[in-house]
Amino acid sequence: MFLRDVASQAVFSPEKMGKVTLASGASLMAGLNCFEPGQEHKPHAHAGQDKLYLIMEGTGEATVGSETQVLVAGDAAFASADVPHGMRNTGAGRLIVMVILAPPPH
Amino acid sequence: MFLRDVASQAVFSPEKMGKVTLASGASLMAGLNCFEPGQEHKPHAHAGQDKLYLIMEGTGEATVGSETQVLVAGDAAFASADVPHGMRNTGAGRLIVMVILAPPPH
Repeated sequence: MFLRDVASQAVFSPEKMGKVTLASGASLMAGLNCFEPGQEHKPHAHAGQDKLYLIMEGTGEATVGSETQVLVAGDAAFASADVPHGMRNTGAGRLIVMVILAPPPH
Repeated sequence: MFLRDVASQAVFSPEKMGKVTLASGASLMAGLNCFEPGQEHKPHAHAGQDKLYLIMEGTGEATVGSETQVLVAGDAAFASADVPHGMRNTGAGRLIVMVILAPPPH
């Protein structure tokens, strides 16, 4: 399958981070996490799941393990299975992050 | 781990597509495929591996199954396990594609 202009598929919600599933297979799920300014996905861990974040648009403060860094479009973060990770929109505009989880959530 | 300006880690070779590993876990491998103009990765399939392509820079003709489309930065293609897929740089400049494989190659 082909996905045109991935970031354009972002969905936002005033209440909390928006989530979009882009593609899902037996071993991998790709989606978008969509943050209004100030919204966050608090640090959490996935038992047995690797996770990759890629910033598509905006500015986000990413946490992986005990480290936190401010990321911009084109930057990525990788959390191996069981490593706590989170993301917060610290920019003035919207933040769109591509997320890849393997294996995919049930 | 954090990866700054992912596309800047591209490595090119005049002989064939360049490959870079960005991050690797138990369930997921992320890397770059780097194509000079005219270079290609001929259609092939991975037994039991899902693969996601995300165009970071340039213009590529992607094949998934029996379909071929021209993709640009921000577009993606997903090939489920065992579905043949390939990529060719049909642009005038370099083509940088992020690739995610799950499970990772041995």
